[in-house]
Amino acid sequence: MPELPVIEDITSASQLLDTVARITPLLESEIVNKQLGGRILVKAECLQVTGSFKIRGAWNKVNAIPEKMRNRGVVAYSSGNHAQGVAATAKRLGIPATIVMPFDAPQIKKENTRLMGATIVEYDREIESREAIGAEIANNTGATLVKPYDDFHIIAGQGTVGLETCIQAGNLNVSIDQLLSPCGGGGLIAGVSLAMHHRFPRCEVYAVEPLHFEDTTRSLSAGKRLRNTPGYSSLCDSIVTPEPGELTFEINRKHLAGGIVVDDNSVLRAMRMAFDRFKIVVEPGGAVALAAVLDGQIPVAGKTTLVICSGGNVDPLIFARCLSTG
Amino acid sequence: MPELPVIEDITSASQLLDTVARITPLLESEIVNKQLGGRILVKAECLQVTGSFKIRGAWNKVNAIPEKMRNRGVVAYSSGNHAQGVAATAKRLGIPATIVMPFDAPQIKKENTRLMGATIVEYDREIESREAIGAEIANNTGATLVKPYDDFHIIAGQGTVGLETCIQAGNLNVSIDQLLSPCGGGGLIAGVSLAMHHRFPRCEVYAVEPLHFEDTTRSLSAGKRLRNTPGYSSLCDSIVTPEPGELTFEINRKHLAGGIVVDDNSVLRAMRMAFDRFKIVVEPGGAVALAAVLDGQIPVAGKTTLVICSGGNVDPLIFARCLSTG
Repeated sequence: MPELPVIEDITSASQLLDTVARITPLLESEIVNKQLGGRILVKAECLQVTGSFKIRGAWNKVNAIPEKMRNRGVVAYSSGNHAQGVAATAKRLGIPATIVMPFDAPQIKKENTRLMGATIVEYDREIESREAIGAEIANNTGATLVKPYDDFHIIAGQGTVGLETCIQAGNLNVSIDQLLSPCGGGGLIAGVSLAMHHRFPRCEVYAVEPLHFEDTTRSLSAGKRLRNTPGYSSLCDSIVTPEPGELTFEINRKHLAGGIVVDDNSVLRAMRMAFDRFKIVVEPGGAVALAAVLDGQIPVAGKTTLVICSGGNVDPLIFARCLSTG
Repeated sequence: MPELPVIEDITSASQLLDTVARITPLLESEIVNKQLGGRILVKAECLQVTGSFKIRGAWNKVNAIPEKMRNRGVVAYSSGNHAQGVAATAKRLGIPATIVMPFDAPQIKKENTRLMGATIVEYDREIESREAIGAEIANNTGATLVKPYDDFHIIAGQGTVGLETCIQAGNLNVSIDQLLSPCGGGGLIAGVSLAMHHRFPRCEVYAVEPLHFEDTTRSLSAGKRLRNTPGYSSLCDSIVTPEPGELTFEINRKHLAGGIVVDDNSVLRAMRMAFDRFKIVVEPGGAVALAAVLDGQIPVAGKTTLVICSGGNVDPLIFARCLSTG
């Protein structure tokens, strides 16, 4: 097993991100609290630079690559948010970036990645292996592969979301009883749970996943990594990963209280609620944790519950669907 | 002329608001900056408690009412955002609130005002006077009238948006060359321009208004208060006031560089851009300043421009219109 990050690695990442990432607000609505009977704090990472938390891990990782290697560029595979994080990082550092993206990734994610100056290589996620394409590009160009989640520095970087939230909770003089986070490969929730348990050791941390992509939920129950059954689709493009990462699962199986699964309709209701009550744009994959709370899948009455809304890169036509419901 | 607020009154308001209002983020997009050739900073007051900046003035005003009077309640007339600010304030203080609202105000604003425990009295803005209805309720109940903008404490409270922005600009080590703010009765921009000129004396401040409701723009040119011609409508419900306030205009004529007028289509494009690039929900009246910048009505190249997005209380069907364009 490779080395796992600890709290000091997250603190270091936080210092490195000081002038790069934004301190995203912790939002709260009296109306929502009253309706649900508990205190809901929303960490709005959709307002982060590049529209998702991914800049945190990408910046921390790419800056850890030795300069001589780094100047040969970076390559990443991503459905879009990690792509934008890596592209924005590369642009700031003045190095080339190649991103391997599914051809059916949301337009906004492809467009933004291009606008940030990266070269996009498209592939078919049904029949091609993004890992193989990424490895080939790395071999041919000498670029360093920046994995989306299963990496020491990526996990430490994403953990700064948790560190920042702990400081904000301290300013509000509040203790976090439970935390719900979207979960794809598990990098965000691994880093966040490390930071959260350092400050709030009894906080219960739950991974929330889309229906048919509940690999972490099942893996936590089984005590070992399990893959998703292929052939399903989900609105939640940013978190439809095949199986938990090796490093991320090693952290998550120690820190997580369990997993929760939500369907697309529940996600659309959560996006609508974020629009109505918090005035933020949340993408489907970013809204799963809020969906779990609204569904009543976890008791929130009398508790303080932290909900991470991890990204906001959603195509307008998908967002319009949440506006026409209710 | 009644007494006008000064910077110390805004500082006092800021202290009073410390545990009530949120420090809203200053958002920035590298893609937008590149497209426009200048640095655009967006003050996201749509993320404020109650979905607009109005809680700032309402809280500052109601807390200035002597306690014996205050306990008899407050009354306000408002198309919605001031209503929510006053209702939320009254609820926190445990006093009754009556709000006089046009029957055609956005559903979300009426619903939220009700959810905050206020009593709503509806009127027809074509044939009834909200001032008269408000005065009658105040007379009958002993409640204090909380005016929407033309008031010493309201202006000082709204000015905290500017004070806060100056601190945030200082943290970014940036100087604000020009500021654009939505303008209805002029309370927000009056308070903000006072705060801004205390810190950045050469900052050019522009009021942005919807087409057919450009009373402040015309009044600034004429050097005296002029009324709008009745009979027009606008998407920008939150800033369709009949004429500048007496106090607000006295401040604005000294501090403002001029006015800018935008139409509904331009406002929809700005709402869409806020969705795409900043991941925030901005209501039409809150998006006029961003619209002026996107329209190219003010040169931004090589400058740092602060744009206030003042509120996010928009009905879903209106918001859907901005998603189907472009």
